Amino acid sequence: MPQETKLEVALACAVPMPSRDSVLLGHGSGGRMSGELLRNILLPALRNPILERLDDQAVLGVGESRIAFTTDSYVVKPLFFPGGDIGTLAVNGTVNDLAMGGAEPLYLSLALILEEGLPFDTLRRVMESIRVAAALAGVVVVTGDTKVVERGSGDGLFVNTSGIGLVPCGVDLSADKARPGDRVLLSGTIGDHGIAILSQREGLEFASTVSSDTVALHTLVTAVLRASSEIRCLRDPTRGGVSSSLNEIAARSHVGIELVGDAIPIREDVRGACEILGLDPLYVANEGKLLAIVAPQAAEAVLAAMRQHPLGRNAQMIGTVTNSHPKIVTLRTWLGTSRVVDLLSGEQLPRIC
Amino acid sequence: MPQETKLEVALACAVPMPSRDSVLLGHGSGGRMSGELLRNILLPALRNPILERLDDQAVLGVGESRIAFTTDSYVVKPLFFPGGDIGTLAVNGTVNDLAMGGAEPLYLSLALILEEGLPFDTLRRVMESIRVAAALAGVVVVTGDTKVVERGSGDGLFVNTSGIGLVPCGVDLSADKARPGDRVLLSGTIGDHGIAILSQREGLEFASTVSSDTVALHTLVTAVLRASSEIRCLRDPTRGGVSSSLNEIAARSHVGIELVGDAIPIREDVRGACEILGLDPLYVANEGKLLAIVAPQAAEAVLAAMRQHPLGRNAQMIGTVTNSHPKIVTLRTWLGTSRVVDLLSGEQLPRIC
Repeated sequence: MPQETKLEVALACAVPMPSRDSVLLGHGSGGRMSGELLRNILLPALRNPILERLDDQAVLGVGESRIAFTTDSYVVKPLFFPGGDIGTLAVNGTVNDLAMGGAEPLYLSLALILEEGLPFDTLRRVMESIRVAAALAGVVVVTGDTKVVERGSGDGLFVNTSGIGLVPCGVDLSADKARPGDRVLLSGTIGDHGIAILSQREGLEFASTVSSDTVALHTLVTAVLRASSEIRCLRDPTRGGVSSSLNEIAARSHVGIELVGDAIPIREDVRGACEILGLDPLYVANEGKLLAIVAPQAAEAVLAAMRQHPLGRNAQMIGTVTNSHPKIVTLRTWLGTSRVVDLLSGEQLPRIC
Repeated sequence: MPQETKLEVALACAVPMPSRDSVLLGHGSGGRMSGELLRNILLPALRNPILERLDDQAVLGVGESRIAFTTDSYVVKPLFFPGGDIGTLAVNGTVNDLAMGGAEPLYLSLALILEEGLPFDTLRRVMESIRVAAALAGVVVVTGDTKVVERGSGDGLFVNTSGIGLVPCGVDLSADKARPGDRVLLSGTIGDHGIAILSQREGLEFASTVSSDTVALHTLVTAVLRASSEIRCLRDPTRGGVSSSLNEIAARSHVGIELVGDAIPIREDVRGACEILGLDPLYVANEGKLLAIVAPQAAEAVLAAMRQHPLGRNAQMIGTVTNSHPKIVTLRTWLGTSRVVDLLSGEQLPRIC
């Protein structure tokens, strides 16, 4: 058998064609394929009204208290990147999912899946990041688990954090509460996390190093909730970016959302990197930004409160909720034309968090 | 270069020698190496009094309630085995960790790490098992997460479940509460789960098929707690087996534990399989058994209550807590001699749960 044929056979064995019957990378995108997996396979087995709200956290009555409960696994690649690492991300990401429900983050669990051969030094660095991030966010890691898999059955380190927090009386935020006329506020620049990961992964160098924006947002949420009682919904636009979060809100609330392109804050170097890489920044992940849907009369006060907070200095009003095209997000460009901001259909940046 | 040399080079690259500076499979054993990893790397970063209790669950004051909170990742191999699959295990294991704290299990989170190429049919089967196990245990999956990693960066499916439950007033169970004179009760036969997995994995066939004992134990716990108010500690002896759980209790309570070998229930086929495979059943994992440390005057009533419950029919009193050899577990054999039942030093059965 000639060499080429052997090679082809080997490649065919190693990298099977994408199949309609098995999991593809795109199912982890946070976009359309993730939604299909959720609707077709995961939700049918688990149907219940709490899960079906599909918020970033469940809010539960436990005894006399209202508890927020959330979970996320982190498979980010590489483990370390400008501005943070998998440990920082695992703490801040779960703290933020609690905060987006208006909860005071209190306790985290930490479950590690280690691949045989992971250097202890790597693990120590990640644990130190977890310690620092938890201390900064004021949460305590109270329970944990460690598993080890054979070399080749994992990828160094996967981290799961689950979190619980306490939801104050009167706070009731959810993606189904947006109403026509509401304003869309964004706390700062978009795309920083995704571009930081991608630059690190691909060894790209731009004029300046873009750092991940990973940070705990709970104090910014407190400032927002203090500024007005008319907050409908908060979301941190992580995997899938601003586009995915707003499409979810539009779908859940049966409203349209109209964005003003010029108003969306973005760093020049991130914009440049997106242009070079052919990425739409609206789909690029953030780990330290929040979207707030607020009643029109509350918008100015909430925007001012955001801008007074160190994590919201670049906050902008970026759009309006409308009843004219339910479940659809549009963007008005600087040319005055409008385009649909659809859900990402495949995978843009695998393993971004 | 001769063929052999190439092969040796390839092998040397693919399977580096075990190192003192990196993670080995034994660090996932639940035995001595797991303890070292915990003490040397994980705990120093996370020091706090709740975590340092090292119980299977944290008990937390949240608002007016006492909440139990626990997490476990599941990496069992193979995914399906006689008596259950990774989904059954993920629900029952976390339910049991809550139950061992005396909590009423209420809510679970579910986080999946899927490897690209995982057949949807596999995922559907596991989700159906999760549905059935959650329904049987009376818990609701209220929040979740799905990540996808590239082919070769995972192993089909890893599952994390975290759980929260409500701890009734007056219940306070912990591994540091064993006192000399207390009795050690075991709810049934040991080693079933470990032997079921191992048989499936290695394609071994014994006279009969051994099934995993995976089951939710919360109703058995309720029966135990109703039978006496003098329960010191409950543990489900999973990874690392009865030996690891009792060594932990002995260490935490600064007591010795003396086991009577003849009293420990074990199925004949499991005993036979252990003999053939050279395994000590005291170290083999269980997923549907509980150990109870109870005050001496409570032992008979608790044993009777266990035996009246379908999951405790084979319950036995297997030993006594003593002050004569603190932190050491011993076993009296049928010959009348005594031997130390030490912590497992390496890995006996990787990826058992």
